[in-house]
Amino acid sequence: MDSRYDIAIVGSGPAGLSAAINAKIRNKNIILFGNAELSEKLVKAAQIKNYLGLPDITGLQLKDKFEKHIKSMNINIILERINEIYAMGEYFGLMVNKKMYEAKTIVLATGIEYTKPLRGEEKFLGRGVGYCATCDAPLYKGKIVTIIGYNKEAEKEANYVNELVKKVYYVPMYRDKLKLDGDIEVVRGKELEIYGKEKVEKVLLKDREIITDGVFVLKDSISPAQLVPGIAMQDNHVKIDVNMNTNIPGCFAAGDCAGKPYQYMKAVGQGQIAALNAVSYLDNLSDS
Amino acid sequence: MDSRYDIAIVGSGPAGLSAAINAKIRNKNIILFGNAELSEKLVKAAQIKNYLGLPDITGLQLKDKFEKHIKSMNINIILERINEIYAMGEYFGLMVNKKMYEAKTIVLATGIEYTKPLRGEEKFLGRGVGYCATCDAPLYKGKIVTIIGYNKEAEKEANYVNELVKKVYYVPMYRDKLKLDGDIEVVRGKELEIYGKEKVEKVLLKDREIITDGVFVLKDSISPAQLVPGIAMQDNHVKIDVNMNTNIPGCFAAGDCAGKPYQYMKAVGQGQIAALNAVSYLDNLSDS
Ligand SMILES: Cc1cc2nc3c(=O)[nH]c(=O)nc-3n(C[C@H](O)[C@H](O)[C@H](O)COP(=O)(O)OP(=O)(O)OC[C@H]3O[C@@H](n4cnc5c(N)ncnc54)[C@H](O)[C@@H]3O)c2cc1C
Ligand SMILES: Cc1cc2nc3c(=O)[nH]c(=O)nc-3n(C[C@H](O)[C@H](O)[C@H](O)COP(=O)(O)OP(=O)(O)OC[C@H]3O[C@@H](n4cnc5c(N)ncnc54)[C@H](O)[C@@H]3O)c2cc1C
Repeated sequence: MDSRYDIAIVGSGPAGLSAAINAKIRNKNIILFGNAELSEKLVKAAQIKNYLGLPDITGLQLKDKFEKHIKSMNINIILERINEIYAMGEYFGLMVNKKMYEAKTIVLATGIEYTKPLRGEEKFLGRGVGYCATCDAPLYKGKIVTIIGYNKEAEKEANYVNELVKKVYYVPMYRDKLKLDGDIEVVRGKELEIYGKEKVEKVLLKDREIITDGVFVLKDSISPAQLVPGIAMQDNHVKIDVNMNTNIPGCFAAGDCAGKPYQYMKAVGQGQIAALNAVSYLDNLSDS
Repeated sequence: MDSRYDIAIVGSGPAGLSAAINAKIRNKNIILFGNAELSEKLVKAAQIKNYLGLPDITGLQLKDKFEKHIKSMNINIILERINEIYAMGEYFGLMVNKKMYEAKTIVLATGIEYTKPLRGEEKFLGRGVGYCATCDAPLYKGKIVTIIGYNKEAEKEANYVNELVKKVYYVPMYRDKLKLDGDIEVVRGKELEIYGKEKVEKVLLKDREIITDGVFVLKDSISPAQLVPGIAMQDNHVKIDVNMNTNIPGCFAAGDCAGKPYQYMKAVGQGQIAALNAVSYLDNLSDS
């Protein structure tokens, strides 16, 4: 089947890119999901001293070098965010909202979210709090939704949700200029708390409260446990062995999402191990 | 104690260099053992396509970049070959012939020898066959020794042995011009076999035989099990966990010596993990 990829790589940071170049060298049919900036963490790094072979480089410069490398190998990044991954036995289904991609193996390279959960965020998860605005917005037709956005991409989702619901509040957790539809109300504030009894009722801020039916918290990455139902975790990271196997056969993990230390070379090394073991896994599939 | 290092890194390939820069950034007092070429395998690589950020580079060019990186951080390579490492409880003793270095932790980054053992090599190990000419040469005073050298460094050892024993034969397993003392007899030949009854008696070649009392086989690296008595192995590699711990507390391993795949980025990533975990180990020591 043409539309089923050999390896789907989720994440375009150093771990995902390293997995991609190594899988491509082995002639696998790959698909790589991520974003145009490659990795927020990469572009933010002011000075990197421990990328062996490139002493004293900025994150932006390193990003350029990574970009040139993947371009030279004709690797494209699909600018879509995977919401959920299902292990279907024979293959994996990767969901982008209602659209599904299929792949025989997965390399998870989603990085990790450093931000602590907000007060109330974990308590009300599934009871008014969600992480995928575009997936769940239809549930809030005619209702009030608050979007807590940690990056500029969340603005696009806010604009989309705004077409479906009665009213959108947008709470930016960053400083950039916003590009939001005119009727979205921007609320800046500190000391956020998500509050309610059985389910979400309000978002509390230091000097204001917002009555709301639903809250979407849009971060750079969602937890691997949410992304891949059934995946085994250890200390908030995907549990891996030395070969980057997770507990799900054919599903590998690499980089920050697979544990500490949070570092480039470690991410790149693990991305390579994950890809090469995915290749071996595929070879075994075709042997049997 | 001044002369006891925090971290001794054995091997100057990608794994060892990565360990060194990361340990140095953490302000540890390190010592790095290896050779001037950094790594034989590195300089041999004609074209490297999978070092993320440096597409299409030769091994020699990558070696130059590595060299610049460590120089910029004032990291020097001690050009000595460690023969044996003893875990002394509080610290490790690293032997270079009769000289000993002391370190609180070890990162093994010795690479792996691809060459198959010669016929008879394993059978007569310790019964005439040895891997450390400078250590064991005194045992052959007045006797005949054959040195099977896999690289140019073996020539220096041959010249040293030549001062102590009656006669040295040198069998080069490579093509370079040799720099040997005049009375060393060079024997070129194929289909080598080490032969004897109880102990070594001869080295057999396709069209010649050498009567000999001892044979030194001098390769790029000796097996980790020989280097570190008591270290746990798995499939001919040092057994590690995801944090690069070996079975010996304070002793870490990284790169080719720690398992497949044999690749640069994997070696570099593991070197980083090993160094950072050695740093944590040291921090715990000083806490208690
Ligand atoms: C300011 C700063 C400075 C740093 N400096 C250094 C340094 O000097 N040296 C060093 O070694 N490390 C440094 N780090 C750490 C380093 O940035 C990380 O360890 C590294 O980026 C981890 O790589 P990764 O590929 O695992 O994840 P990331 O780089 O986080 O990349 C993950 C990518 O996956 C994408 N993604 C996540 N989920 C999905 C999904 N569901 N669908 C599609 N895409 C998804 C994300 O958007 C992101 O682009 C620094 C970090 C920061 C924040
Ligand atoms: C021809 C060739 C081409 C290759 N091409 C690629 C490629 O394109 N991409 C890729 O990813 N990989 C490639 N590889 C594999 C890559 O070279 C290895 O995986 C990598 O070098 C492993 O790094 P390392 O640091 O673990 O060990 P090494 O690079 O082998 O370095 C180990 C070093 O430790 C030293 N040492 C060993 N024992 C001692 C001791 N007792 N005391 C002091 N020093 C010691 C050795 O002399 C050596 O310098 C290639 C290998 C070869 C041979």
